[in-house]
Amino acid sequence: MEKQQEKTIYLKAYPIRSYDDVKRIKDDVSSGNIVIIRFTPLVKKSLDELSRSVDELYKFVMALGGDIARLGEDRIVITPPGIKIYRESGLKY
Amino acid sequence: MEKQQEKTIYLKAYPIRSYDDVKRIKDDVSSGNIVIIRFTPLVKKSLDELSRSVDELYKFVMALGGDIARLGEDRIVITPPGIKIYRESGLKY
Repeated sequence: MEKQQEKTIYLKAYPIRSYDDVKRIKDDVSSGNIVIIRFTPLVKKSLDELSRSVDELYKFVMALGGDIARLGEDRIVITPPGIKIYRESGLKY
Repeated sequence: MEKQQEKTIYLKAYPIRSYDDVKRIKDDVSSGNIVIIRFTPLVKKSLDELSRSVDELYKFVMALGGDIARLGEDRIVITPPGIKIYRESGLKY
């Protein structure tokens, strides 16, 4: 086992369907992966649940030292520490 | 200068507006960054130019050892070597 060997990072894209999915997202980002969630199923289900989920993910990512940003109309990108979201002003993502 | 120090990876999201933007995308991915391109402006401009751009990006990424995948209706994700796109069957991204 090489200590210096780099671990593969995964970029995972999946929908969030309920507040219960927050745990999986946290686990994925804690493991060093990038997650792109599509939150439209939760918009249709409950705006309160969506708000609670995004709020918790935001606080989690800030504490972890990762990054979080909206991507278009339907998605949110969450990155682990070491991966920053580049914000280009004046551009619609 | 620490040789082992890890470089920050950027996740950049921007639109592709013409075939000329392919160079910038290649440069970003060659530098180890992740790029999410929104290709709708090119759909409206020229399907031929879109097809030529995507074809070139696909070949470039395969040669580099990165990964490329469609994300939803309007976007393509391109990753450098070391970052794999996780494909979950049965899910609409």
